[in-house]
Amino acid sequence: MTNERPLLLLSNDDGVNAKGIQELIAALRTVADLIVVAPDGPRSGSSGAITSEHPLRCTKMRQEPGLIVYKCSGSPVDCVKLALHALVPRKPDMVIGGINHGDNSSVNVHYSGTMGVVIEGCLKGIPSVGFSLCNHSADADFSATLPYVRRIVEEVLAKGLPVGKCLNVNFPDTNELKGVRICRQTDGVWTNEFVKADHPRGGYYYWLTGEYQNNEPDAEDTDHWALEHGYVAITPTQIDVTAYSLMEDLKHWNWNV
Amino acid sequence: MTNERPLLLLSNDDGVNAKGIQELIAALRTVADLIVVAPDGPRSGSSGAITSEHPLRCTKMRQEPGLIVYKCSGSPVDCVKLALHALVPRKPDMVIGGINHGDNSSVNVHYSGTMGVVIEGCLKGIPSVGFSLCNHSADADFSATLPYVRRIVEEVLAKGLPVGKCLNVNFPDTNELKGVRICRQTDGVWTNEFVKADHPRGGYYYWLTGEYQNNEPDAEDTDHWALEHGYVAITPTQIDVTAYSLMEDLKHWNWNV
Repeated sequence: MTNERPLLLLSNDDGVNAKGIQELIAALRTVADLIVVAPDGPRSGSSGAITSEHPLRCTKMRQEPGLIVYKCSGSPVDCVKLALHALVPRKPDMVIGGINHGDNSSVNVHYSGTMGVVIEGCLKGIPSVGFSLCNHSADADFSATLPYVRRIVEEVLAKGLPVGKCLNVNFPDTNELKGVRICRQTDGVWTNEFVKADHPRGGYYYWLTGEYQNNEPDAEDTDHWALEHGYVAITPTQIDVTAYSLMEDLKHWNWNV
Repeated sequence: MTNERPLLLLSNDDGVNAKGIQELIAALRTVADLIVVAPDGPRSGSSGAITSEHPLRCTKMRQEPGLIVYKCSGSPVDCVKLALHALVPRKPDMVIGGINHGDNSSVNVHYSGTMGVVIEGCLKGIPSVGFSLCNHSADADFSATLPYVRRIVEEVLAKGLPVGKCLNVNFPDTNELKGVRICRQTDGVWTNEFVKADHPRGGYYYWLTGEYQNNEPDAEDTDHWALEHGYVAITPTQIDVTAYSLMEDLKHWNWNV
């Protein structure tokens, strides 16, 4: 790899062979040198999970000028940690998660392995961005997202991001994107989350599923509203989760034992 | 279960048989009716992970007046979701995670399965609190924490918590607790995160480990400072992770494709 071009670390939660990350690689090869360290299979819903009970293995799959690809046995966050600890030739200029097959707006940020990647990059002091498309299909069409992916990466490379802040970028599933909106996280909740079935050897088993309920469908400053109306939703996200507004109040509660 | 006593949903990430949750059960049986739905084995570092690729199974282990205990094959968040969907007799008055074997202050909130439990309870609109002791040992001594656990639970039952806000409570590993401090999340980072070893069949494997680095050791309003100085650290935590301070600035960046 040369020193002149930016270096981007890419990962995801759908696995190294997913179409989303392969499209991301193709879109960003013209912009930067890439090192890809991604899970060896699907890890959807991994959130910020890390692997402490098992060792990790990592295998180089591909090496070309400007591109190295590893697969790793761990979680998305493990991939970022291992990449930064042992695999990158220098500190990357950005960490990028995605492109995810599925919506990571609203409360999904808390479950998303893609955003796990991004938050880990941010925790390590590197400008970090997650990209997600609101389509779960393995063969989803990412083509409309790619010009935006390149523009957003170029803009973040040029301007940087404040320490402790990252971007959660979601694309509606349409070929006619109306442009970008800067959003806040929508207040929503998952309901009816399980399907119950009889187990052939007795008892039940449960499959996670669910329906998303938007608690503020008319709020035009939210990421879900933007997606519903055909816009690219950029939700700036922070790693300090302190509820500052509650601190003063709590100091006057009775905590004496 | 009677209708007069509060109902508390308990889970953790160390597994249903861990000493921490067993001590929690013993400490809270005098305060409320308890339903425990916890992982069937260790799930440390699960964060907000959910299980979408496999079905879940759940088994009742114990039923006595005021106490029902289930073990579940999934993650800590799966346990909370499944409990609320299928196992609780009514909406619990609180969701409680812990008592965790290990420190969940500072950036650990992003990796913690205990806080995954708490954030899930909070996402479901239920007052939620996580308890963690800064000692990883399986036989850690939780005795000094228990009067505080009861007091904090009673206080939250009496006063409630604002929607979208939960508490991350960490205890230093000492028998001489100096009282409670209301804190913010410490700015810190994990370094030297892997030990590399030769794999007997070639190549390497990596164990996650690491050293915590406090980036603001003198900041007296942080949770890590409180713990270092013998106080119980209560860090109010929120589920809206929008970086509001960055929104106006981002609206003036060039996002045109």
